[in-house]
Amino acid sequence: MRTSNEMAEAAFLAGSFATEPLVRRAAVLLAIADAVDARVDELVACAMTETGLEDARLRGEVRRTTVQLRLFADVVAEGGFLDVRIDERDEAFVLGVRPDLRRMRTPIGPVLNFAASNFPFAFSVVGGDTAAALAAGCSVIVKAHPGHPELSRLTAQIAIDAIARSGAPRDLLQLAEGREMSVELLRHPRIAAASFTGSLGGGRVLADIAAARPDPIPFYGELGSVNPVVVTQAAIAERRGQVVDGFVASISGSAGQLCTKPGFLFVPAGSDIAADVAAAFAALPEHRLLFPRLAEGFAARRQEILDVPDLEVAASGSIRFDEDGNGWARPALAVATLEELRAAGSVLMDECFGPLAIIVPYDDADVLAEDFVGLFEGNLTAGLHLAAGESAGWIERLVSVMSHHAGRVLFNGWPTGVAVTHAQQHGGPWPATTTGTTSVGTASIERFLRAVAYQDAPEEFLPAPLRDDNPWGVPQARSRAGESAHWGERAAAGS
Amino acid sequence: MRTSNEMAEAAFLAGSFATEPLVRRAAVLLAIADAVDARVDELVACAMTETGLEDARLRGEVRRTTVQLRLFADVVAEGGFLDVRIDERDEAFVLGVRPDLRRMRTPIGPVLNFAASNFPFAFSVVGGDTAAALAAGCSVIVKAHPGHPELSRLTAQIAIDAIARSGAPRDLLQLAEGREMSVELLRHPRIAAASFTGSLGGGRVLADIAAARPDPIPFYGELGSVNPVVVTQAAIAERRGQVVDGFVASISGSAGQLCTKPGFLFVPAGSDIAADVAAAFAALPEHRLLFPRLAEGFAARRQEILDVPDLEVAASGSIRFDEDGNGWARPALAVATLEELRAAGSVLMDECFGPLAIIVPYDDADVLAEDFVGLFEGNLTAGLHLAAGESAGWIERLVSVMSHHAGRVLFNGWPTGVAVTHAQQHGGPWPATTTGTTSVGTASIERFLRAVAYQDAPEEFLPAPLRDDNPWGVPQARSRAGESAHWGERAAAGS
Repeated sequence: MRTSNEMAEAAFLAGSFATEPLVRRAAVLLAIADAVDARVDELVACAMTETGLEDARLRGEVRRTTVQLRLFADVVAEGGFLDVRIDERDEAFVLGVRPDLRRMRTPIGPVLNFAASNFPFAFSVVGGDTAAALAAGCSVIVKAHPGHPELSRLTAQIAIDAIARSGAPRDLLQLAEGREMSVELLRHPRIAAASFTGSLGGGRVLADIAAARPDPIPFYGELGSVNPVVVTQAAIAERRGQVVDGFVASISGSAGQLCTKPGFLFVPAGSDIAADVAAAFAALPEHRLLFPRLAEGFAARRQEILDVPDLEVAASGSIRFDEDGNGWARPALAVATLEELRAAGSVLMDECFGPLAIIVPYDDADVLAEDFVGLFEGNLTAGLHLAAGESAGWIERLVSVMSHHAGRVLFNGWPTGVAVTHAQQHGGPWPATTTGTTSVGTASIERFLRAVAYQDAPEEFLPAPLRDDNPWGVPQARSRAGESAHWGERAAAGS
Repeated sequence: MRTSNEMAEAAFLAGSFATEPLVRRAAVLLAIADAVDARVDELVACAMTETGLEDARLRGEVRRTTVQLRLFADVVAEGGFLDVRIDERDEAFVLGVRPDLRRMRTPIGPVLNFAASNFPFAFSVVGGDTAAALAAGCSVIVKAHPGHPELSRLTAQIAIDAIARSGAPRDLLQLAEGREMSVELLRHPRIAAASFTGSLGGGRVLADIAAARPDPIPFYGELGSVNPVVVTQAAIAERRGQVVDGFVASISGSAGQLCTKPGFLFVPAGSDIAADVAAAFAALPEHRLLFPRLAEGFAARRQEILDVPDLEVAASGSIRFDEDGNGWARPALAVATLEELRAAGSVLMDECFGPLAIIVPYDDADVLAEDFVGLFEGNLTAGLHLAAGESAGWIERLVSVMSHHAGRVLFNGWPTGVAVTHAQQHGGPWPATTTGTTSVGTASIERFLRAVAYQDAPEEFLPAPLRDDNPWGVPQARSRAGESAHWGERAAAGS
């Protein structure tokens, strides 16, 4: 077993792979994806035992994970993420001689990635932040989540072997276990950034450690989200059944253990949606929760909510523990008015991670649009169900408020099932995430890059992407002499 | 006088201007630039009195400041900074139906910008961070530096009047004064990001306050840099006089009160450069330091360095205080070997802000290349003077080390006089800056943006840059149906 210091030094040394051509880096990402896909049966079997998640869900998650790796391979090979900017020397620049300046993004350095419990593939050893960091050219140390230790080791072994077979340093990826080890790494001078997906409590402790270092480092944490969804009267009238079914599926899938679970559904008062949802919840089978400690946490948080005085409990659901300590649950549903939410505050409104949701009947849509932001902290998502062609001033205001309040605003759909694409944004105002960056989709590569500029460098000392002969064929944005002066002069003329 | 709460609320409300067309935002930046240029005589006269800086330097700084505003106007009008990404709906996406997803960058929210003492224009009320934040669509509260209060008020008045005349909300820019007020603002829930240029001590206090908020916010601090420069034997042989003259000018300009002052010059042992520099220093007139408290700080730090036992003092320079408490200085020069630097540690190696430099003779270029990073913390810049066509293994290694160690690596030049361009990078590893972003040049707009995505939004609820009819004509990167599946499939086929 390596010490934290040995791991950090090994990660630093492996980082030199970033100077190799981008196509080699892309090949490493593809090699990991291929190796994981080839062992999918074994991986899913291991994950089922450790997490209680279902076969279909886990296979889908593996596919999503390897698609993300492949998308990043394309992004890396294309090279636009380097944001190469070349200012040619300009003797006639408006501020005097402008030197030759060439700027590109470069890896931030070794990354420490804390894996999540609820996505044993997509937010774990070779999940989003690992893929993004490797794509950026960083080496990665993953802190395994204790909820799925065997799966973490198996995935790491498969990925590291694939890295080695593709001719890259094995230490591009390392696995760390245990809290003490991870805190030592978080404080290690070689670690340049950290990422985390988990609870607000645990995440805040780690964020504070990162911020208190002699040299603070970026900490990309995803700490909790309640993902409110608003349904209009017209949407209910148009497709009541679809709304109920979609909400039930989004809450019960993966036993509600998703950061994008729609925890609050705002419906017009009198629509009686709660009764339909409660009936559907009661008909669901029990679902095992991820691991015993998480189940205990859910049981306590659920009870805290159901115990709120005078709260209408539409479905109490259930929670029981088996002989292995695993929790099995059916979803619970509460109903609270806007006034009750405000009065109860964080007891009702903080995230409840697991199968529980709150329906909020509203009388006055204008009041809802006004109150929405004050009620909640930042969220990953906010959603709206409208009828076809429906429009109103309050809806416009609500969409504007939601866009300030969340990272993704979605219409006529449910926030779970996050698409892995170029335009995805999975990150929002605190505490949804600690920064405005995304942890899903290819834009997440930006988390792990910093910029460096070269001034008047002889060609032979320039990194390949900044050279005039552009051997890797990356996009280069070039400001030519004269053009630059033109900008200044044109603007000075007010045109 | 407004309270901190009134200022923060006013900043929040003014932020709604960000939904106006980008050309209106660009017009505000041009209006500020025009208004400042029109009052340059008055502004420079005021700045001379308050800072002791010279007329030519201050006029150049005003020009640089308004050029930066004009460059940002172009960036804003062009719209590429929004990084618009559109994923069209794809029924055949590799992970199942891909929704219509549209992502853009959006203003992070009200920004608190702490002005610097040493650039009363370029890093002050309408300086780089203010320009970048306004360009991003944020409202800005500038904390005036107490070293130039009258100039800060005059500049703010000119800029705010220009904003109002261009039809935008006056409160897009506000001026705050006093430490207590600024700390209240830094803690205010409406403030979404802060920027700072100043000392490590003061900056760390503020960074810690930002990180300790219930909802931590990004803190973009520039906290200190010593900007080492290495000269090769061949460069000395080729242009000894130029190297000496350039170094002397770079140290003495603005009395060394620049974050890019080359504090350490590494020269081949025996080249006797120190004697030439010392002679040049002795012939310089006294230069007034920026303000009394800064002069006192420099006097103490200078004495601390000159008192290091056995340190070779090639030029002791001078410091005296006039009846107004202003300090007047001539540059000091010390000479220390690599071993002495290492032995003395932070006493010699931390930044000394003002007219003092240290020359470091080196015997073995290979040893220098090895030791370079271990000696210094992160820097804004690192430089290298080579002879024409000179190349060697140790130089290559040194350039690689410098690119990890600094934000800008420059050749055959001096780090002072930072070009305001698209490819500039003014930011490096801690403590040079708290993050890898830049505070000079147009890439600094990235400091003040976060991203938001819209999923399956009816056209009428989309912000203009995300609409298919693209009314503002911004660049849109589009993933079409089929293309996206192609990415996944192509990569899966290993091609």
